Amino acid sequence: MLKMNFNITSPKKDIVPYLIEKIDNLTKPKGSLGRLEELAVQIGAIQQTLSPSLTHPHHIVFGGDHGITAEGVSYSPPEVTPQMVFNFMEGGAGINFLARQHSIKMKIVDSGINYDFENMDQLIDLKVRKGTRNYLHEKAITQSEFDSCIERGAQVVRDCHKEGCNVISFGEMGIGNTSSSSIWMSLLTGIPLVECVGAGSGFDNEGVNRKYRILKQALDNYTGDGSVIDILCHFGGYEMLMAVGGMLQAAELNMVILIDGFIMTNCILAASKLYPEVLEYSIFCHQGDEAGHKLVLDYLQAKPLLHFGMRLGEGTGALCAYPLIESSVRMINEMSTFKHAKVTKYF
Amino acid sequence: MLKMNFNITSPKKDIVPYLIEKIDNLTKPKGSLGRLEELAVQIGAIQQTLSPSLTHPHHIVFGGDHGITAEGVSYSPPEVTPQMVFNFMEGGAGINFLARQHSIKMKIVDSGINYDFENMDQLIDLKVRKGTRNYLHEKAITQSEFDSCIERGAQVVRDCHKEGCNVISFGEMGIGNTSSSSIWMSLLTGIPLVECVGAGSGFDNEGVNRKYRILKQALDNYTGDGSVIDILCHFGGYEMLMAVGGMLQAAELNMVILIDGFIMTNCILAASKLYPEVLEYSIFCHQGDEAGHKLVLDYLQAKPLLHFGMRLGEGTGALCAYPLIESSVRMINEMSTFKHAKVTKYF
Repeated sequence: MLKMNFNITSPKKDIVPYLIEKIDNLTKPKGSLGRLEELAVQIGAIQQTLSPSLTHPHHIVFGGDHGITAEGVSYSPPEVTPQMVFNFMEGGAGINFLARQHSIKMKIVDSGINYDFENMDQLIDLKVRKGTRNYLHEKAITQSEFDSCIERGAQVVRDCHKEGCNVISFGEMGIGNTSSSSIWMSLLTGIPLVECVGAGSGFDNEGVNRKYRILKQALDNYTGDGSVIDILCHFGGYEMLMAVGGMLQAAELNMVILIDGFIMTNCILAASKLYPEVLEYSIFCHQGDEAGHKLVLDYLQAKPLLHFGMRLGEGTGALCAYPLIESSVRMINEMSTFKHAKVTKYF
Repeated sequence: MLKMNFNITSPKKDIVPYLIEKIDNLTKPKGSLGRLEELAVQIGAIQQTLSPSLTHPHHIVFGGDHGITAEGVSYSPPEVTPQMVFNFMEGGAGINFLARQHSIKMKIVDSGINYDFENMDQLIDLKVRKGTRNYLHEKAITQSEFDSCIERGAQVVRDCHKEGCNVISFGEMGIGNTSSSSIWMSLLTGIPLVECVGAGSGFDNEGVNRKYRILKQALDNYTGDGSVIDILCHFGGYEMLMAVGGMLQAAELNMVILIDGFIMTNCILAASKLYPEVLEYSIFCHQGDEAGHKLVLDYLQAKPLLHFGMRLGEGTGALCAYPLIESSVRMINEMSTFKHAKVTKYF
C-alpha cells in the first residue's frame, strides 16, 4: 500500500571528531560559540565535509484548504487562504520580507486550495482537490491522494536540488491547519488532545474550548486502523502531506532542513514516524506560542534556536533563524586557527 | 568632579499607539510576529518615525589590559589581549566573520593594552595607559583617566554618527575583564559577589573558587566612597569605561544600542546608574553562559533576543542577533496592510 521508497540513512559520524577538532582550534575559548558550534558539527556531518556550505537556499510554501473549517475550528475564515497566496505573490506577506532579507528563493505551491487561480506564473499548481474533506464526518484525504502529495512534495524538492540547493525550509498557508496538526500530534505522540490544541490565529479561551470539543468529537468518530499513514490521511491537509514528502526527499538528498513552527514541527514528527533518520537533517528554528508546540518539540528532543513568540506560520520562524545557521558555517570556514593567528592557545 | 554632561531623555511615547496601529494592520494575525513587533515599536520610538531604518551599522571593539591578572584571576594569559587585536585586524576572529556577514563596519580601539602597536592604520589609538593598576592593592583607574575614557568612547561614537550610523554595538577584548564586570555587578546591584563570579574564558570549579577569593579580598580591601563613579574607577577597565562613554553618547544621539554578553551588560548597567534612560535605547541581544549574566539581565528587566550558549565576548552575541533586528525594521516597512492586499481582517 505504501509506495514511498526513500533511502534515508543517518549521516556518517566518523567525521564528527574532526569537525570538533577543527572548531576547537579556532581562536576562541573552547565551546564559547555555543549553538553555532553545534550547528556547524551537524551541517558538517550532513555534508560530510570540514568546510560545509549553504548553497541556493529555498523556501517552499504549500497552501491548502481544510474541510473541517465548516465546523468553525478556525478564528479566520477560509477565504484567507487564497487571499494570502495572492499576497505572497505580490511580496507583501511576512515570509516575503524575510526571504528578501536573506536572499532565499521562494516557491509557492497550490497543494489544495479552494479557489481557481488563473494565469499565475509564479504559483506552482499541484492542486490535489479544492480542500480536504471534513474529517468530523469522513476521511480527509484518500490513500491515492496521500501518495500524490508525498510524490509532489518530493518533486518540488528535487527541482530545488537540481538548481544547486542544499538547504531548504518549508512553510504553509492553510486556514484550519493547526487543527490537523493538533490531532496528528496527539495521535502520534500519545499526548492528550487537550494539551495539543491552541488558539491558532487568534481564538480566545472560549474559542479554544469550542475548537477542542469539535476535534475531540472528530477523534471519537475515527474508526481507522490507527497506522501512521491512516492517521495522516484521515486528519491531514494536502499542504502538510506535501511538506512531509518534501522533508523526506530533502533528507534523502542530504539537504539541511529548516523546521518552522507548530505545523511544520508536526509535519517533521509525521515524517520521522515513517523515517526516523529525517530528524538528523533537521534544524528546529523556532518555538512559538501555540499551545502544544513546546510539548511536541520536547517529544522530539529538539532545541529550537529562537523563542520569539511568533505564531504566524508561512515559515517565518524558520527564515528568521536562517542567518544564525549561516553564521555557524561562516565560523568554521572563516575563523583563524590559534596557530595561523599566532594566538596563545590557553583559552 | 564628574565632567560628564550628556543630555539623555526617554524617547517620546506619543508615537507608540501609532506604531502599534500600523503593525496591527499588516497581513498577519495580531501580535503573531512576537519579538519582531516589540523591536519595531522600540526602534520606531527611538527614531520617532513610523518607518524606522538602520543605517551604517557599526561595531566598536575596545581593548584593554587589567592589572588584576597578575593575581591569576584569568584562565588565559594577558598576552592574549594584543594577540587577539592582531587577529581582529587580520579578520580571523569570531567578531570578524559576523561583521562581514551582516555588513557591519568594525572599529578596533586600543583603550589601554599593554603592548606597543606600531604602524597599525586600522587600530584607533586611544590608549590611556598600558593596562589598569591592580585593584587588589590600589584604585585601578584615576578620576582623570575616567574622564578621558568616557570622552574618548563618546568621541568614537560621534565619529560613527557623522558617517550616518544610527545603530551601534560594542564589544571588548581584555583578559581579566569578567573579574571587573563581576565586581561592578555586585556593587551596583547588591547581588552577592559569589553569584556574580563565573568561569570567564575557561576556569574549572577550583579556578572559579580561586578567582572568587581574590575578588572578595579586593572588595574587602576597598575603602572608597562607594559612589558609582568611584566603584567604576576602582575596579574598572579602560575598555569598559570607553564602552560606557560610547553607550551614553549613542543614547544622546538617539542611536539604537546593541548589548552583547556579560561584560557589555555590566557596562550598560554602569551607564544606567549614571543616566537611567540609556536603557530605553538598548536592545539586549544575547544571554550567555557566564554565571551571573542571567541575574544582571533580570535586574535590568531585560529580555535578551538569543540564548545561544555563547561566552566569547568581542560583541559576538550582539552581532549574531543583528539580522533579527533588521527583520523587525523590514517587517514594519515592507509588509502589506490588510486593506492594500485585500485580505479579510479576521485574523
